Amino acid sequence: MNRLASPLLTDLYQLTMLHAYYTHGMRDTAVFELFVRKLPPNRNFMMAAGLEQALDFLEGLRFTAEDLEWVEHSGLFPREFARHLESLVFTGDVHAMPEGTIFFPDEPILRVTAPMPQAQLAESRLLNLVHFETLVATKAARSVLAAPGKRLVDFGLRRAHGAEAGLLAARASYLAGFAGTATVLAGARMGIPLFGTMAHSFVEAHDDEAAAFERFAQAYPGGAVLLIDTYDTELAALKVVALASKLKSRGIRVQGVRLDSGNLLVLAKNVRRILNEGGLADATIFASGNLDEYLLRELLAAGAPIDGFGIGTSLVTSSDAPFLDAVYKLQEYAGKPRRKRSTGKVTWPGRKQVFRQYDSAGRFRHDIIAVEGGNGIAGEPLLVPVMQRGRRLHGPETLAAIRDRASAQLAKLPGHLASLETATPAYPVEIHPTLRALANQADRITDEVPVLCR
Amino acid sequence: MNRLASPLLTDLYQLTMLHAYYTHGMRDTAVFELFVRKLPPNRNFMMAAGLEQALDFLEGLRFTAEDLEWVEHSGLFPREFARHLESLVFTGDVHAMPEGTIFFPDEPILRVTAPMPQAQLAESRLLNLVHFETLVATKAARSVLAAPGKRLVDFGLRRAHGAEAGLLAARASYLAGFAGTATVLAGARMGIPLFGTMAHSFVEAHDDEAAAFERFAQAYPGGAVLLIDTYDTELAALKVVALASKLKSRGIRVQGVRLDSGNLLVLAKNVRRILNEGGLADATIFASGNLDEYLLRELLAAGAPIDGFGIGTSLVTSSDAPFLDAVYKLQEYAGKPRRKRSTGKVTWPGRKQVFRQYDSAGRFRHDIIAVEGGNGIAGEPLLVPVMQRGRRLHGPETLAAIRDRASAQLAKLPGHLASLETATPAYPVEIHPTLRALANQADRITDEVPVLCR
Repeated sequence: MNRLASPLLTDLYQLTMLHAYYTHGMRDTAVFELFVRKLPPNRNFMMAAGLEQALDFLEGLRFTAEDLEWVEHSGLFPREFARHLESLVFTGDVHAMPEGTIFFPDEPILRVTAPMPQAQLAESRLLNLVHFETLVATKAARSVLAAPGKRLVDFGLRRAHGAEAGLLAARASYLAGFAGTATVLAGARMGIPLFGTMAHSFVEAHDDEAAAFERFAQAYPGGAVLLIDTYDTELAALKVVALASKLKSRGIRVQGVRLDSGNLLVLAKNVRRILNEGGLADATIFASGNLDEYLLRELLAAGAPIDGFGIGTSLVTSSDAPFLDAVYKLQEYAGKPRRKRSTGKVTWPGRKQVFRQYDSAGRFRHDIIAVEGGNGIAGEPLLVPVMQRGRRLHGPETLAAIRDRASAQLAKLPGHLASLETATPAYPVEIHPTLRALANQADRITDEVPVLCR
Repeated sequence: MNRLASPLLTDLYQLTMLHAYYTHGMRDTAVFELFVRKLPPNRNFMMAAGLEQALDFLEGLRFTAEDLEWVEHSGLFPREFARHLESLVFTGDVHAMPEGTIFFPDEPILRVTAPMPQAQLAESRLLNLVHFETLVATKAARSVLAAPGKRLVDFGLRRAHGAEAGLLAARASYLAGFAGTATVLAGARMGIPLFGTMAHSFVEAHDDEAAAFERFAQAYPGGAVLLIDTYDTELAALKVVALASKLKSRGIRVQGVRLDSGNLLVLAKNVRRILNEGGLADATIFASGNLDEYLLRELLAAGAPIDGFGIGTSLVTSSDAPFLDAVYKLQEYAGKPRRKRSTGKVTWPGRKQVFRQYDSAGRFRHDIIAVEGGNGIAGEPLLVPVMQRGRRLHGPETLAAIRDRASAQLAKLPGHLASLETATPAYPVEIHPTLRALANQADRITDEVPVLCR
């Protein structure tokens, strides 16, 4: 997608370790899994996203001449290290949960099986991509649950953390159920539907607010959305009514109005009344301005007659939980299970599968994390092969297909987990006995080594 | 810096408004200012950053053939609109506070003076760049204040919000006083010093932790930093001591150790003792793992013998305040002052200057926001011309120069504002009477228009 996708977009220690791996000939198969250790505050589930970008990254992983020249002259490595990197491409396998899948803590959503140097090098960027899109899809799904049937639009580009965050937030929110985005490049590059109205500056650039509305409507005879809170919202709504009847004879239609400040509940009710009494019952009311899923819930519960919402900063920064405890951990090397036992950060080793069981109504009932290939475990296996020997098994999924999956997943979520606050009981995720046995085995490998240095 | 820098990386309403501006021949000079409306939680000041990227963006602003083709065929605009865009370049002036300058709410940090379509189009990306770097520089400055003299390193790439966030966070934290970053591309592209150690996976890929240490140290005879918390931290420190004496005769040096989990205060003290007793008094202790400025302050106050800190997620997401209330507002159009009066979002109109006054010790005493050119106002004007008629007035500032400025600014901050919590009294920022008079004048312009549509 962009030149930022250099393999040098990684942490220095990945290269340092690669150098050590090459020095010691450690190129056996490594298995890494990407998972989230715990739910962020106020979350009862997460929604997987970013796989498409992750696979793009792996398929395109190679050092350019410019990258290699930097490595050679960086003074950080012996010069022969660059020669190892020159031929590095990704030749491994990837298993993953399809995008839009709902998942829970400790469940791997992506597994990489590849020669150690390749699998290790990919860590930083894989996390960077999958963490962020998953973060935003999870956040967006909450607004979808809070405002069913409403038109939700990503307005976040200006306060997204950089260009890529703006683009990927548009993608992640769209796949989670948003109607579209205001970010033009997301429409141009990914086909995401675009929405937009007008800014206060347009009104302010005119001495007369009504004149600004008229000019904007003339430029968009098919149906402009007019921003009415620059000075006095209800007064502006009256101007819209007068303008609409004046323009009607000229075939120009006012599609709706946007509110961006003040008491949105009161203003929406008053504006709705003004529009209805003025013969504009069809005109829509769109609201924006520091909104999030909590405010959407509150406005709709109070009966605010609002048809759609623009959600910006809170969505693209996931402001109430701006990160997930997402990690990418070595689970197996050279055929042996591995895990770390650092305080508070113990992981489950080995190649895993997540099995999901459903209740009679088709809702999620119970997940089981087990060793892959665990025979006889009932349930739907959530991780599927998506890349083999460095090549995708299928073409990219369409965003429409991912949106359908995300929507179906949200419909299958146990009702109490659709809450915007932490719900009890939490969704049950069981660690299968096969996995506990494997963990003991992994610990024995490292424990049995005599402590030679002591 | 990357292909993401298309002018289509903007909000749809910017293009919609441009179309209306072109339709109605509104190409007079507009003045927009970028400022932050209020301090985020627990902040007493902000540090300006991102100007370099903002100027790059303005200098490179143009629609490629591919962009224009999309505009023409998007179905969103009449086809002649693309012809207007074809010749659009930025020909305006920019005034700004130099990067590293400390600033306060309502103070413009960047001003754009340009024909309306150019100035309007730039809004989304200018905010996207300046908001994020300023957010991270402000966050980073807090760690610099909390841990004076300690080596601070950005470890955040994996949980930064996308590629550009990772890179720009490395830049913003470095200019605010960090020693460097782990993000290789930030070193390769911007010359930011790189730091890195090893990951748990390296240790786990070996059956024997001591063997992993030895291999890593052999690969880095100049001085490896060994990660010692994979299994048992103190046991690992003993292994490091044994290894160091074994390797010394071969000319291989262990530079230090890294702790990444557990009770860092207790572990650092115990590890320090083990290293000292083992003849490794020179070996450094580096700590990481969900750190932020609050934890740095706590650890250092308790006397933790830690020489440096890797700070990741909390830094690059500014996790306790993941956004600033940053806006870019029209202040003047066609020679007349403008402002909006939306509830809770009233702005001060006109071209402004910020004057800073100092006390006898050279510390910031008082800022005054006034109309530009306000004669006889004492104090240092903080906004300086940086671009004229679309061209930079000077070459890019070096990061070293910006770091020096940031450091000097932090030293001049009134002592109580260096707190990590909201301090009282807040820094005094005065709205000069000239500005209040201009606001009244701006309101009269819009108020005097008869409400024709009512």
